[in-house]
Amino acid sequence: MESLKEKILTEGEAIGTEIVKVDGFLNHQIDVKFLEEIGEEFKRRFDDIEVDKILTVEASGIAIACMAAPLFGYPPVVFAKKAAPSTMNEGFYEAEAKSFTKGTISKLKVAKKFLKEGDKVLIIDDFMASGEAAAALAQIATEAGAEVVGVGAVIEKGFQGGSERLRSMGYRVESLAVIEKIEDGVLTFE
Amino acid sequence: MESLKEKILTEGEAIGTEIVKVDGFLNHQIDVKFLEEIGEEFKRRFDDIEVDKILTVEASGIAIACMAAPLFGYPPVVFAKKAAPSTMNEGFYEAEAKSFTKGTISKLKVAKKFLKEGDKVLIIDDFMASGEAAAALAQIATEAGAEVVGVGAVIEKGFQGGSERLRSMGYRVESLAVIEKIEDGVLTFE
Repeated sequence: MESLKEKILTEGEAIGTEIVKVDGFLNHQIDVKFLEEIGEEFKRRFDDIEVDKILTVEASGIAIACMAAPLFGYPPVVFAKKAAPSTMNEGFYEAEAKSFTKGTISKLKVAKKFLKEGDKVLIIDDFMASGEAAAALAQIATEAGAEVVGVGAVIEKGFQGGSERLRSMGYRVESLAVIEKIEDGVLTFE
Repeated sequence: MESLKEKILTEGEAIGTEIVKVDGFLNHQIDVKFLEEIGEEFKRRFDDIEVDKILTVEASGIAIACMAAPLFGYPPVVFAKKAAPSTMNEGFYEAEAKSFTKGTISKLKVAKKFLKEGDKVLIIDDFMASGEAAAALAQIATEAGAEVVGVGAVIEKGFQGGSERLRSMGYRVESLAVIEKIEDGVLTFE
């Protein structure tokens, strides 16, 4: 997605060899108009599939999933929680994922009532690094008897192996911009 | 907002005397089509004001703010973070807010670069209880020299004093559904 690559280059910031910061339009401040374009691109890439639910993780994934939902006919968006609120008093599925930027391990949780057997689930997230979050979401969906029909990431750090890992697990992966490497604060796309 | 009240009654769950759970359309699973209606209602209520930025808190606030943004002409949505990621390496504003449902105190953080002096800021969130989160966001906006032009909540627990507190601080508050009381699992609107 050319407009995304351009936006990453002009508004993003490459740090060291592993981090790209896009807090100006995706992770802290959100460019909603641009997210509409991202939603359209996901729809273009996954145009042939039926989607019953979009599954993502709090926090940044929520905006992306919500802006994509209208294009897929308004399926419910379910976001996995990293901490269970006191009101989460029913059964939930849980899977571990390591956050690359926060250096922490999150236990992603989804209430059982929001995933049903046979649900066609599209997983969408902002970043894909080693694929930890997407793999955890796929594990949760699978445990619920749902079918993962696709995994979409806005930005993939191609050198961290996430899409390779998920494809080897049999999932269809679409990343809208794949970064090949980051060197001395300069990033290159595949 | 009648459709919201009806949705709370039919899909929500009143627990004890203080909690209403709406995880089926707002806080865990999101009904994006309905959030569009909520966005329209916020626009109706705040139709006379100019909005440069919408300020909210992760996680549930993000969906609401993003779905409202197109109605206000696509101002940037900025969401306060409860934990600073390792990539948040610049100056940020910080204010404390107690989460009613999680029983924890969060230090809300907003990077300084995303709030400018003179910005007309509309604060939007999912719930208003005692007004802690909104007051913290208002404190952050004020510290940045921005102007809080309104505070919008989807659901207000009127008996917890939030809107009174914020109005006494001089803010204009619009809550789309105000719960008067919760008793034995039954809730009543004002």
